[in-house]
Amino acid sequence: MKSFVILLATLPLAAQTPQRIQSPEVKPDRTVTFRLRAPSAQQVFVQVETLSKPSAMTKGEDGVWTYTAGPLDPDYYGYSFIVDGTPFTDPSNPLRKPNYIYQTSEFHVAGPGLPWELSDAPRGVVHRHFYHSAVVGDDRDFYVYTPAGYETNPKQKYPVLYLQHGYSDDASGWTAVGRANVILDNLISQGKAKPMLVVMSLGYGAPEILQPNVSFRDADVRSRNFGRFTDALLQEVIPQVEKKYRAIADRRSRAMAGLSMGGAETLLTGLNHMDKFAWIGAFSSGGMTNEFDKQWPKLDAKANDQLKLLWVACGTEDGLIKINRDFREWLKSKGVKHEDVETPGAHTWPVWRRNLATFAPLLFR
Amino acid sequence: MKSFVILLATLPLAAQTPQRIQSPEVKPDRTVTFRLRAPSAQQVFVQVETLSKPSAMTKGEDGVWTYTAGPLDPDYYGYSFIVDGTPFTDPSNPLRKPNYIYQTSEFHVAGPGLPWELSDAPRGVVHRHFYHSAVVGDDRDFYVYTPAGYETNPKQKYPVLYLQHGYSDDASGWTAVGRANVILDNLISQGKAKPMLVVMSLGYGAPEILQPNVSFRDADVRSRNFGRFTDALLQEVIPQVEKKYRAIADRRSRAMAGLSMGGAETLLTGLNHMDKFAWIGAFSSGGMTNEFDKQWPKLDAKANDQLKLLWVACGTEDGLIKINRDFREWLKSKGVKHEDVETPGAHTWPVWRRNLATFAPLLFR
Repeated sequence: MKSFVILLATLPLAAQTPQRIQSPEVKPDRTVTFRLRAPSAQQVFVQVETLSKPSAMTKGEDGVWTYTAGPLDPDYYGYSFIVDGTPFTDPSNPLRKPNYIYQTSEFHVAGPGLPWELSDAPRGVVHRHFYHSAVVGDDRDFYVYTPAGYETNPKQKYPVLYLQHGYSDDASGWTAVGRANVILDNLISQGKAKPMLVVMSLGYGAPEILQPNVSFRDADVRSRNFGRFTDALLQEVIPQVEKKYRAIADRRSRAMAGLSMGGAETLLTGLNHMDKFAWIGAFSSGGMTNEFDKQWPKLDAKANDQLKLLWVACGTEDGLIKINRDFREWLKSKGVKHEDVETPGAHTWPVWRRNLATFAPLLFR
Repeated sequence: MKSFVILLATLPLAAQTPQRIQSPEVKPDRTVTFRLRAPSAQQVFVQVETLSKPSAMTKGEDGVWTYTAGPLDPDYYGYSFIVDGTPFTDPSNPLRKPNYIYQTSEFHVAGPGLPWELSDAPRGVVHRHFYHSAVVGDDRDFYVYTPAGYETNPKQKYPVLYLQHGYSDDASGWTAVGRANVILDNLISQGKAKPMLVVMSLGYGAPEILQPNVSFRDADVRSRNFGRFTDALLQEVIPQVEKKYRAIADRRSRAMAGLSMGGAETLLTGLNHMDKFAWIGAFSSGGMTNEFDKQWPKLDAKANDQLKLLWVACGTEDGLIKINRDFREWLKSKGVKHEDVETPGAHTWPVWRRNLATFAPLLFR
């Protein structure tokens, strides 16, 4: 057994901590216990997505801080520890939400039958493409979901949903956190959604908007971010997708949707390019200003002849509910037909997973 | 601008920290400064991959701890902070190495022209497949790299390298950390490697081997882990790949390689199934025992007629160098031809990226 002693001696320092602890522990009663070994810390909180404020953890004699939350509704949740004021992910948990700014761990409270849960549905494939963007001037990626059966039906062509992530997410957000591929696997398998491709590209036309010294509030950066995003999507991503995949290259077979910043991008790109998209879904949109006339100067009731669906959703506890209501009022004033969707919830992924599960079945009918 | 105030108010708690800091900062002279705001901490270290011991950070008046390492050789490095004894990833850095046990952040010291650096080479695609493993009894994934030109040359068939990750890694390890896709993009573009598919599946036949209360030293679990890994690869992964991709289904067009636990898996699977593989590469193998005769009971000099390449590598500073040297001595005693490869370095990714960049060009000649 000598070799294993040697093997362990070569592992990183973290391996030399006395004993691994289990955190989080999700119990059958849907309570969740968090644990952190931090004997010298003075105060530790755990901040759980959807819970309004951080919860104080209790230190045990073994130096391990614990807190039990719940019972929680079945879902995926982000969380972080706040140790004497500094936010950290959970060192005992490999699940993490990819994000450029906010590092959070993740846990799952299982709820069989929910749209984002694994089931017996045949699984699609997620393809990651890499390219140099001439529009933005960087090397970037986009993801393409192909539904089960794509490889075995070589003559079938598919409509495409272009699905945008939010500010601080990366292009993997909708699959890694949003579980878009699992949601589509389930909906398609159950006959609730049409088989479709889902394309998830990088939402930054001005990636400097993520830098510590730049603010999303900076109107110049934001305008460049939105403008170049649209150009990269229309000039670079869509042509690659329609060349590499059996996509139906027709506005009635293209949908666009997104969350938060990606919702604003969907409205800005989609409603200004109805020659490209006939189906539009905006989830908890953030980033457009109240000057709606300036952002959609040509939008009027003629859109009703082109749009098959304009679906504008927001959680009622979301700080963005007001601008979304204002936007829908403005649409009404312009005579533009749309679906008003308000659901429980704040500016969180549980809302957006449900948005996608509700929106995708409406497409390409 | 009101909407942005609202938007920011809805962001997670981490956003409410006074000011984002930049960490790590990689400077043109290849020194790297790490920063962590932790005013109440008593002692903070940073542990950097390839550096033998943790470095003490210094606390500034602003409560921010800093340390500058280097200059460092161009490469990708893992690191973590150790705050009063607890290891954490860097809350300011979105780059993280995916791993089931050791949570570490990552940074990049650029070295244009190195095999893992982005270049003008055309980019391949990384496909993520999901399936239910009947052998192991879980839902799992595998990744397939297709080289540039795969879609546009529909009649070309490709040889396949089956590439295994190490203990505690997941199936994304070889792309996310090992940059296998970028290395192949470069080698193929430069004419140094043949165009090939690379398949990266999950290396756990007994996933319970990852649990806090189970040890990799447990011979029963390890044996089940290796046995079911082999079965899942041969019975589930390879058939799916050869059905879904234009793979040449012939032993001379199949290679297998892996690092650490994946090196042992490669030797155990490959050398016991030479009807399936003609090219074998073991990088810093760990997990086999010194009882070589028991693990390869039929191996003898007849293997020389079947194997096109048996490449056994280890870093000279790796704790596993001895068992790898012993194994090669045993191969010699059996009259089995192989390449002895010793390179500088320990049990770290910089060694394995270089192993892949050296090994892949030898394949399918």
